[in-house]
Amino acid sequence: MVRAHLDRLLDGMTEGEAFPSERDLAERFDVARETVRQALRELLLAGRIERRGRSTVVSRPKLVQPLAMGSYTEAARARGLSAERLLLGWTDLEADDALAAHLAVDPGAQVWQLERVLIVDGFRIGLETTYLPAQRYPGLVDGFDSRTSLYAEITARGIAFTRTADTIETTLPDAREAALLAVDARTPMFLINRVSYDQDDTPIERCRSLYRGDRMTFTTTMRA
Amino acid sequence: MVRAHLDRLLDGMTEGEAFPSERDLAERFDVARETVRQALRELLLAGRIERRGRSTVVSRPKLVQPLAMGSYTEAARARGLSAERLLLGWTDLEADDALAAHLAVDPGAQVWQLERVLIVDGFRIGLETTYLPAQRYPGLVDGFDSRTSLYAEITARGIAFTRTADTIETTLPDAREAALLAVDARTPMFLINRVSYDQDDTPIERCRSLYRGDRMTFTTTMRA
Repeated sequence: MVRAHLDRLLDGMTEGEAFPSERDLAERFDVARETVRQALRELLLAGRIERRGRSTVVSRPKLVQPLAMGSYTEAARARGLSAERLLLGWTDLEADDALAAHLAVDPGAQVWQLERVLIVDGFRIGLETTYLPAQRYPGLVDGFDSRTSLYAEITARGIAFTRTADTIETTLPDAREAALLAVDARTPMFLINRVSYDQDDTPIERCRSLYRGDRMTFTTTMRA
Repeated sequence: MVRAHLDRLLDGMTEGEAFPSERDLAERFDVARETVRQALRELLLAGRIERRGRSTVVSRPKLVQPLAMGSYTEAARARGLSAERLLLGWTDLEADDALAAHLAVDPGAQVWQLERVLIVDGFRIGLETTYLPAQRYPGLVDGFDSRTSLYAEITARGIAFTRTADTIETTLPDAREAALLAVDARTPMFLINRVSYDQDDTPIERCRSLYRGDRMTFTTTMRA
């Protein structure tokens, strides 16, 4: 159980501290170097340690983020972190059957797809693809500053976010996603698909969010 | 974007259907076979396709499970699925500082650790490690049928689950966990750490749950 040993070792160390070498660890825990190598690979992909040049150091703690209806940019800023969004692009789509059902529009209806990278505290931590029924948001593509919160923009149009329905999955990034998020392709990721509804229970948007599993922890509290 | 092509292809197929070969896919989408191979590897680890002998077929859909306070065994059974738990063992521990803080007991206090595999619909989908302050549950180790719901057992003792605080992470399984869950060591997993509290806000248990990301989807609904 070398991984359990390493987890405990990490719990007592601080960010940026040099992590012992593979050879030191193999000697200390009396296991084969290949066993240590495998455990270190897991810790690297889990984001607990990282390579800096030739040495291995303890990573910054993950960003802890409550599962919430609102804007993750705003939530991060409220906690004193820098948070920005990098626009990848707007795409004009026709809704296929699945998207039409999610957005409660007719198949073939015009949908705007907005793709942005979420950058928190200097890390590219998420890739968000939002689908909006075009007819509902006149002037949005030209008027919206894509570095800001879409949530705030929609709320300012008198539409209230009343309910969200999320599915939470794990996945691996594809090659483009790995490149955009500067992450190893073997890194486990969160995939959250959300539909948000307004005060009339009409869908506001569908959002597909891919978050780096090595940099994000979600929290949630439930009450009876 | 071969992965997007394959995702769409999969959306139109049903469980058990034979998936086209690497060569067929490379020709159909006019890409290199290595590109297709990488995309198929991602789909395998994501649990969307699986090998059956020499062929590749579409997997059963994931188990969709609301994030909830109660027992996942009971929730699965309520939906007509088989659900059972396999006892790995009880361990008698002394609380270290971190565990003592979670359970609101003194460091060194006796803690029972219960480790079980959760089996739903024939799949080993989760590995649950529960930490219980021993003093609070006299007779538990001898009297509890470990195949049943611990939630029901504790509730029957007059303790009400009133609040749970969860952290949700992704991780990779270590070698033992991968063996216990019969999963490839590169499969992204959910790691959920929970502390449950009773009507007096006293901790009931701490639970570390590892769920197969290729077989589980969690859902959650939020309201303003």
